Amino acid sequence: MLEPVINDKCGVFGIVGHKRAAELTYFGLYSLQHRGHESAGIVTSDKGRIHLHKGMGEVSHVFSNSENISRLSGRIAIGHTRYSTTGASSLINIQPFIITNKSRPLAIAHNGNLTNSLDLRNRLESKGAIFQTTSDTEIILHLVASSKKSKRIDQIADALNHARGAFSLVFMTEDSILAARDPHGFRPLAIGKMGRTWVVASETCAFDIIGAKYVRDVAPGEIIEITPAGIKSAFLKQKVKTASCIFEYIYFARPDSKVFGENVDKIRRRLGRMLAREHPVEADIVIGIPDSANTATLGYAEESGLKFEIGLIRNHYVGRTFIDPNQEIRDLDVKVKFNPVKGVLENRRVVVIDDSIVRGTTAQKLVKMIRNAGAKEVHFRISSPPIISPCFFGIDMPTKQELIASNMSVAQIEKKLGVDSLRYLSHDAMLSMSSLPDTSFCSSCFSGKYPLRIPKINGKSRLDKI
Amino acid sequence: MLEPVINDKCGVFGIVGHKRAAELTYFGLYSLQHRGHESAGIVTSDKGRIHLHKGMGEVSHVFSNSENISRLSGRIAIGHTRYSTTGASSLINIQPFIITNKSRPLAIAHNGNLTNSLDLRNRLESKGAIFQTTSDTEIILHLVASSKKSKRIDQIADALNHARGAFSLVFMTEDSILAARDPHGFRPLAIGKMGRTWVVASETCAFDIIGAKYVRDVAPGEIIEITPAGIKSAFLKQKVKTASCIFEYIYFARPDSKVFGENVDKIRRRLGRMLAREHPVEADIVIGIPDSANTATLGYAEESGLKFEIGLIRNHYVGRTFIDPNQEIRDLDVKVKFNPVKGVLENRRVVVIDDSIVRGTTAQKLVKMIRNAGAKEVHFRISSPPIISPCFFGIDMPTKQELIASNMSVAQIEKKLGVDSLRYLSHDAMLSMSSLPDTSFCSSCFSGKYPLRIPKINGKSRLDKI
Amino acid sequence: MLEPVINDKCGVFGIVGHKRAAELTYFGLYSLQHRGHESAGIVTSDKGRIHLHKGMGEVSHVFSNSENISRLSGRIAIGHTRYSTTGASSLINIQPFIITNKSRPLAIAHNGNLTNSLDLRNRLESKGAIFQTTSDTEIILHLVASSKKSKRIDQIADALNHARGAFSLVFMTEDSILAARDPHGFRPLAIGKMGRTWVVASETCAFDIIGAKYVRDVAPGEIIEITPAGIKSAFLKQKVKTASCIFEYIYFARPDSKVFGENVDKIRRRLGRMLAREHPVEADIVIGIPDSANTATLGYAEESGLKFEIGLIRNHYVGRTFIDPNQEIRDLDVKVKFNPVKGVLENRRVVVIDDSIVRGTTAQKLVKMIRNAGAKEVHFRISSPPIISPCFFGIDMPTKQELIASNMSVAQIEKKLGVDSLRYLSHDAMLSMSSLPDTSFCSSCFSGKYPLRIPKINGKSRLDKI
Amino acid sequence: MLEPVINDKCGVFGIVGHKRAAELTYFGLYSLQHRGHESAGIVTSDKGRIHLHKGMGEVSHVFSNSENISRLSGRIAIGHTRYSTTGASSLINIQPFIITNKSRPLAIAHNGNLTNSLDLRNRLESKGAIFQTTSDTEIILHLVASSKKSKRIDQIADALNHARGAFSLVFMTEDSILAARDPHGFRPLAIGKMGRTWVVASETCAFDIIGAKYVRDVAPGEIIEITPAGIKSAFLKQKVKTASCIFEYIYFARPDSKVFGENVDKIRRRLGRMLAREHPVEADIVIGIPDSANTATLGYAEESGLKFEIGLIRNHYVGRTFIDPNQEIRDLDVKVKFNPVKGVLENRRVVVIDDSIVRGTTAQKLVKMIRNAGAKEVHFRISSPPIISPCFFGIDMPTKQELIASNMSVAQIEKKLGVDSLRYLSHDAMLSMSSLPDTSFCSSCFSGKYPLRIPKINGKSRLDKI
Repeated sequence: MLEPVINDKCGVFGIVGHKRAAELTYFGLYSLQHRGHESAGIVTSDKGRIHLHKGMGEVSHVFSNSENISRLSGRIAIGHTRYSTTGASSLINIQPFIITNKSRPLAIAHNGNLTNSLDLRNRLESKGAIFQTTSDTEIILHLVASSKKSKRIDQIADALNHARGAFSLVFMTEDSILAARDPHGFRPLAIGKMGRTWVVASETCAFDIIGAKYVRDVAPGEIIEITPAGIKSAFLKQKVKTASCIFEYIYFARPDSKVFGENVDKIRRRLGRMLAREHPVEADIVIGIPDSANTATLGYAEESGLKFEIGLIRNHYVGRTFIDPNQEIRDLDVKVKFNPVKGVLENRRVVVIDDSIVRGTTAQKLVKMIRNAGAKEVHFRISSPPIISPCFFGIDMPTKQELIASNMSVAQIEKKLGVDSLRYLSHDAMLSMSSLPDTSFCSSCFSGKYPLRIPKINGKSRLDKI
Repeated sequence: MLEPVINDKCGVFGIVGHKRAAELTYFGLYSLQHRGHESAGIVTSDKGRIHLHKGMGEVSHVFSNSENISRLSGRIAIGHTRYSTTGASSLINIQPFIITNKSRPLAIAHNGNLTNSLDLRNRLESKGAIFQTTSDTEIILHLVASSKKSKRIDQIADALNHARGAFSLVFMTEDSILAARDPHGFRPLAIGKMGRTWVVASETCAFDIIGAKYVRDVAPGEIIEITPAGIKSAFLKQKVKTASCIFEYIYFARPDSKVFGENVDKIRRRLGRMLAREHPVEADIVIGIPDSANTATLGYAEESGLKFEIGLIRNHYVGRTFIDPNQEIRDLDVKVKFNPVKGVLENRRVVVIDDSIVRGTTAQKLVKMIRNAGAKEVHFRISSPPIISPCFFGIDMPTKQELIASNMSVAQIEKKLGVDSLRYLSHDAMLSMSSLPDTSFCSSCFSGKYPLRIPKINGKSRLDKI
Repeated sequence: MLEPVINDKCGVFGIVGHKRAAELTYFGLYSLQHRGHESAGIVTSDKGRIHLHKGMGEVSHVFSNSENISRLSGRIAIGHTRYSTTGASSLINIQPFIITNKSRPLAIAHNGNLTNSLDLRNRLESKGAIFQTTSDTEIILHLVASSKKSKRIDQIADALNHARGAFSLVFMTEDSILAARDPHGFRPLAIGKMGRTWVVASETCAFDIIGAKYVRDVAPGEIIEITPAGIKSAFLKQKVKTASCIFEYIYFARPDSKVFGENVDKIRRRLGRMLAREHPVEADIVIGIPDSANTATLGYAEESGLKFEIGLIRNHYVGRTFIDPNQEIRDLDVKVKFNPVKGVLENRRVVVIDDSIVRGTTAQKLVKMIRNAGAKEVHFRISSPPIISPCFFGIDMPTKQELIASNMSVAQIEKKLGVDSLRYLSHDAMLSMSSLPDTSFCSSCFSGKYPLRIPKINGKSRLDKI
Repeated sequence: MLEPVINDKCGVFGIVGHKRAAELTYFGLYSLQHRGHESAGIVTSDKGRIHLHKGMGEVSHVFSNSENISRLSGRIAIGHTRYSTTGASSLINIQPFIITNKSRPLAIAHNGNLTNSLDLRNRLESKGAIFQTTSDTEIILHLVASSKKSKRIDQIADALNHARGAFSLVFMTEDSILAARDPHGFRPLAIGKMGRTWVVASETCAFDIIGAKYVRDVAPGEIIEITPAGIKSAFLKQKVKTASCIFEYIYFARPDSKVFGENVDKIRRRLGRMLAREHPVEADIVIGIPDSANTATLGYAEESGLKFEIGLIRNHYVGRTFIDPNQEIRDLDVKVKFNPVKGVLENRRVVVIDDSIVRGTTAQKLVKMIRNAGAKEVHFRISSPPIISPCFFGIDMPTKQELIASNMSVAQIEKKLGVDSLRYLSHDAMLSMSSLPDTSFCSSCFSGKYPLRIPKINGKSRLDKI
């Protein structure tokens, strides 16, 4: 069988009521590529006539020919940008998907993962449903089609009442867009406005680039329909405690975005400050792994009083470079991304801030690189707790076996990385960083405690499987 | 809504039990490109693991990278080559399609058109089915999935018992291929063998290129399943008179193929001979429009005793050349395809043989070209009757309004083309060309009499619509 | 060092005084692709402003984007289409070349081969010339630049007075085109007219497609300059006997072209007739290898009274298909090009006409294919004498060692091909086919007698080297 | 005529004595792309056999197919990465160039601009030289070829003794590389070593990525030849005062490189410190325009005691995005590159550090962006003096007319940008930043005083022309 595909790490965008809908979607997707840049697609409705263009590659590659945009006429559009594995088979999984049912078109763009996809798929297949992709997003379309309701918003609500897990969704009909967020509110989804034009997007940086203003988030469990006439709102039946993904704050979202109603930048700053308070160290300078740890590093520097420095330069041209497996250039994968600044590091005791450690392989190479540049001491400080458990709600993470902190103590990791000291932010400190109540977050990757049941596969826990 | 797509003009191929299944499918498709060369695809099963590659363009373009073939491991494969309109939306309609239902994969390649596709689609949609393509082939997959039977062959039989119209189909499961032909037997489908390897293909020229021998046709209404162990056969319920498409003989099939059990070349030769008998003319030479009318021209020359000549050279490099709509080169579309041989035509009374006239625009330009090359007289002889009605069974034809013979008498067409005389082969003569009984053919494009009911759309006859 | 490149097998085109100069050049090149279709280029002058586009691939591929043509503004253009080996290094050899010297641009397109290129290159290099391509055409540009004359036509005459061998050249300056042919007149070059627009081309088929009329050939040793005001003519100093390439008539030119003032079609017809007279055979049918031998086959059939048949179908989609070296499909290279028509060949005694045999490998496979299709006897008849010596004047041929007729007697070849009989047209008969005096042709590939001295390389004859 | 091309903004690389010479060159070029990323090329010598691959696009695009590297066998290689305008005509200007003269190959890669190129070109053309590119680099090849010396190093010295202006060059012969720097030493060129392998590169960051160690710079006026046996050095005749480009330190080089023997990072830090001393301001935070002003910003923050902040996020995916000229998204060109961090800027008095202001248009948009994000005050501080005069030595700058500081006073610019204050670093302070003597730099873009005569064109100063 074709391999199942996980829709994690995606950006979604939707717009209603602008004559350049496709072009604005293009720029919206452009700014969301940190959430996935391996494929992109835009679909528009021009008075019920549907236009689609999608393909593998970065947004600017997929739409490199300006005709590809100008063909997409219409005042309504949705778009998707996504991380995906390569290979021809993954072509079928590029979003948005479009279906027709009962002679009416429906397009969908999805960020997140359903946790009951196997159950739903089995149930649908037993009723004769056929699946043409390997994505769980297709399940939602089948559920919408099997609803007895007549209005799209009701059909979608029907469908989503069966879905469990993480979904921030944007739909397009002939004359409207709909946006929905799962009851836990795992992944972000924001509403913006620009004149009489409504937009929705995974992050508010997509509003900034086109000049739209943030209005509010789609609420957890909310489903809205936007037409040129305005917004209509409804709610899914399931009532659960909010469990917004804390990793969006730690690493995933852009610092200039507002996510779950807070500025990502401010939160990262606080994480850095708390890290300095919990784990101070005698040193000369503090540097961050660019660019994701930059803000936390500033916070650490402020709180600790250590001198902030730029010790690693990030290569702007990190494209899909081929790395010959027989290559003799040691640690080339890290070298094509970063270069140390010797003048900064030489003979210094260096605190290095990173947002998280997953497998530990990159960290190990960076430490070596920093030492080779002459650092006297290297102290790693991580602005989040150890990652010990995989994510089932839309962040691409390796299996439990591959997570270094799941298998080693901090002392062991310290030794493996070759650092003078390694410290992580505590779980409590992390949860206190936001002005929202502690319990509103999902921090399962740090705690191993999931806000909902993860079904076993073949009698085995999926912790080891995905 | 997305535009509906007609799967006419296609070539299908399937193979079981060869370690180079994908490569042989490639060459099979290669030889079937006269049936459609705008997109191509191959799917293989390697012990249940499915591999797919498809794309827009000629077969050699889609598989220009030899990796694309070598990735397609497995001893079982099916392929499709197809005519289709351009535009990104048509990407979704490139065959083979693959679905999963009840955890089992099924791939399909289709040549033909269903006539009850709207009925079926409406019925399926009302039960919640979703459609991701605009092709009627997807309907068959839904019907298969909704069968209560457990074996694929029985599910497919169930599905096809609901289908009306033309279908020559090849399916692939994890470990077998299935082939089916509609009860009228509109489109061809042949079975071949090469050692222990079984193949099926639209035409036998696909067997020749890979060295397989023709065994027999899939019978009208038959459905077969081929595994490495052998062939199993079953029949659809509907019993109707055979109505094989006579246009395959007139124009569509390759002359070196055996179609409906007879050599196409021999039949075309006979058509030319009968044309000479019915419509002799005093002239110096007889020429054909290359390459489709070559064989009928030889027959006409033999029977009439007129000298066979090559009066038009066909350009080998007719690629997708851009033709500037503002171009000032008159009749450029015909000139890039053909060039007259002046030495042959000058001062001659010329009989020109063509297989058929559809709109008449190309014929008109060719006549002018032949006259400009110095021909004294031009007598057009057509090796089939006037086309007066569109096809609903898999041949791409314009609407009744656009068919010149549907709107003009032979005398009027004669005048419009600017020929000294124009004559068509009679309907009776055409039907007598094969050794098969007259009544076994569909000649509806020549007679306007369809072997089955063509549903009206919105209360109007579809004759004017498609 | 980079490998030297031979500019054989090329088509050249030039046009003066048309607002769609580039577009007409495109169609001219399009019709000349039988002379080479591996790269193409067009250069225009828009009041002295030079525009160029060139690339690897067929003409329609290189100019697939209509922008590539529309960018080429100006009323003057020249173009080139060429056979070349693949590989990035050959990019530098794609013509037309453009140079600037003394602040004035000059573009060149070349069909033919210089025989004294090594001498000239050495002499130029010793004076400090640098070479950026591996093509002998660059030498001509250096010679032009080193002329002391002030007018381009005089500079070019100066340059060409030093050149030996075959050259049919088209040059473009800011405001004119120039055309020149070597004193032997090896390769064709014709002048045409269309209203007030002048054109030159390798063959007249390029005039037909754009609607121009043939005026006359550029004479051997002539050099002409065409401006919107008209044609100016001059002659090179060297006076030698004309030696037009007879192989243009045998195989290379299109049958619908006029070459060296005669219709190619008529000459091929006569070759076929003479072949029938010299080498009759008891048989049932006569077939030709399509498409190059078609006309000679008609001549043979007429003269012999044997029935003309189409026994081999040529695949229209012969693209650059990959042929896996490990492939198990026997004789695949021939099968992708041709398919036998069994109904025609079965149980027949077949005369097969071909224009020439080079290595004999394709002929051998075709014979096998024809026998497998059921032919009782196969008699090969070649409408030219045995090829025994390579060409140094612009036809791509293998070394003497690889030429089958250079190493085997006719009886031996007969046996190797597996034919019942093999006969070649006699040298005298071949030379008598034209209305021109016998001595005006170069038939060195058939006779081994070259009309000019071929310099040795490293003390060895080049017959074995190139 | 074809437009002349300026080879400014280039990176060069060369390597001798490594079996993976092409691959290491690839990574060297990869790290030099900040010096130009519009085209790239690599040429290798495999025992005298030359292999070349080059094309338009980023290094990873040009060599996206790993075959393109593996084909480039040999232990000697040079490479070039370059800024260039688009369009087919620029294909001919992609470096390295390869020529053959006297049967010996020579390849060249050039960073810089000759100032006497018109003189040299006229002189060469009058002697019959032809030019196939529009690049001044081709002149050097002609000069090499016209040398009477026999050794390449002497020929190149001969050639370069005629050249004026800026040139950091890498040549490749069959068995060696040569590197040369103009007597002023305008552009950098460094020598590195890795085991027994020698490398040269524009900047030392190219050594870091492959693991080579910096040995020394090629001295101004020096020419070296490197074979596997070692380095040979010679000097050009002209003796002039060193005039290394100070703009390499200000903006162009990577901060992690050592240029002209000093760490770029350290110098930028000092520039920032001096800027703070010269132009302090009462404010809340200091931010830099990422990434080029980052280091100077740190210096300013340290010296001033103001809080360093990250106020602008740079988009990692700034690809070649199409910007519709009719677009209605205001200041889109800046928005696709940067996004302000509102949380940082809101209600703050902000010092913004940039390295330089050229036209002022981007600065103006950034100021607006920063104000829109809520900044209370915006104080621009530039870590270099006003740019008042164009560069003729290899930095791409607009004409004097377009340079904002050439036409406006600081007060006027202040007003135009809409800042509360604008201050530039003084010329003296800038020159004092290095440990090298003041007079060893070219700071003509800041002073208008050129270290050598810039020839007039058509009697007019070129200050207004280029």
